[in-house]
Amino acid sequence: MDLHAMDRYIKSLIKEAGHRIRNSFLTDITIESKSNANDLVTNMDKEIEQFFIERIRRDFSGHRIFGEEGFGDDIQNTKGIIWLLDPIDGTMNFVHQKRNFAISLGIYEDGVGKLGYIYDVVNDDLYHGVKDGGAYYNNEKLRPLMETDISESIVAMNATWAIPNRYLEHEAIIQLIRDVRGTRSFGSAALELAYVASGRFDAYISMRLSPWDIAGGMVIAKEVGAITTNFKGDPANLLKQDTFIAANPAIHQELLNKYIKFK
Amino acid sequence: MDLHAMDRYIKSLIKEAGHRIRNSFLTDITIESKSNANDLVTNMDKEIEQFFIERIRRDFSGHRIFGEEGFGDDIQNTKGIIWLLDPIDGTMNFVHQKRNFAISLGIYEDGVGKLGYIYDVVNDDLYHGVKDGGAYYNNEKLRPLMETDISESIVAMNATWAIPNRYLEHEAIIQLIRDVRGTRSFGSAALELAYVASGRFDAYISMRLSPWDIAGGMVIAKEVGAITTNFKGDPANLLKQDTFIAANPAIHQELLNKYIKFK
Repeated sequence: MDLHAMDRYIKSLIKEAGHRIRNSFLTDITIESKSNANDLVTNMDKEIEQFFIERIRRDFSGHRIFGEEGFGDDIQNTKGIIWLLDPIDGTMNFVHQKRNFAISLGIYEDGVGKLGYIYDVVNDDLYHGVKDGGAYYNNEKLRPLMETDISESIVAMNATWAIPNRYLEHEAIIQLIRDVRGTRSFGSAALELAYVASGRFDAYISMRLSPWDIAGGMVIAKEVGAITTNFKGDPANLLKQDTFIAANPAIHQELLNKYIKFK
Repeated sequence: MDLHAMDRYIKSLIKEAGHRIRNSFLTDITIESKSNANDLVTNMDKEIEQFFIERIRRDFSGHRIFGEEGFGDDIQNTKGIIWLLDPIDGTMNFVHQKRNFAISLGIYEDGVGKLGYIYDVVNDDLYHGVKDGGAYYNNEKLRPLMETDISESIVAMNATWAIPNRYLEHEAIIQLIRDVRGTRSFGSAALELAYVASGRFDAYISMRLSPWDIAGGMVIAKEVGAITTNFKGDPANLLKQDTFIAANPAIHQELLNKYIKFK
């Protein structure tokens, strides 16, 4: 892969997709539910995924595509080059707010993240990372994350993880909420991951994310020193849904040891 | 009061203050704690409040000022014209993120909100409302809030209210989290209130807010039909800290009746 050439291509592709999404605000959006009443999908999620797939198939034969809406390939292993795409990460925000959603895209080769993109469509803000080439917020290089500690941290997490749930001891999460400086929740994993990479959040945790939610962000986060794993501390799963944490390296292990306890 | 002339004056004043805040990103910010280690204040909170006070005293003699940083007047009643000002609402975001904070300003006459402003400084987005004159997002008029119900609502609230706390039965809040479509938390009461007024959130609740946090937003919210009260359903207190809810009129009463139970 010529990462430099692909990076230029992808930036142009993402900006064109963003333009299509912003244009859709002028027309009616069709909304359906997927797994449950609050798991929304719109015609735009589908159209944007198909837009990407068409271009990728035309210009990168042999590359495979793993997309949220399922129009890509049936991915059972991480061999070769795979594009992991969430055309609209934060669909609920897209529907209710017409903002605070992102295009999330990661390019992996044999399971190794090479290029990562998170595009905040409405603000026209692009975060991107190139393996061993640094991470960027638009044209500004993101700096390595600075040392921090739990008591001065801002942690992004959904309130549903602080109430009794089937995955985690919520009492430990309650202690986390008490120990940190503050918690936040945007409702877009990609944007929350972009905030960790840019040092605006110190950690982001979720019980349940899919590969396309995190693939782009992981490449960006790694370039600034953030650690991304599942809750066992293992590398995040690129093939199926799993737990997920992205954190400042100074607090990643402490978060896992002290606050995240499986049921 | 000539609301139209004051509105023009205030918009110019707020934009100038915003410019000063954005410029401060180029220099070092001094950070201190107030009531506790996580209650931050910076030199900019103080400088911006003093900037407003100087202009108000020069150009509106007789008006009183009730500001978060305490450089204004000692306000014990709501008589006459009072400017309620939070120079930087969301100071923790200002410090950690350099975004997601706002200037919040409300002008009240004998306790009645006349003008309200929430300025998202970094995005240069101004929300404002004029009593009986409508609410605006920049130059776009905000529409009256549409009918909704709890199950399709997005509610802004801090996760600290979902865990055992001294104010509320948190079990009822847990039920609320289960019943709504989603929860969010930005860490700026003013911006969360602006989101309620623009229909992007359906409600915002907090156990503890000060008059300057909500004064501007209440004027804006009222113009689109949102209801703002304390948790007892009484008008929000303009003189001291209190509980607070801003909600779509279709769900305000149900939120109070079913989910908000004082200890």
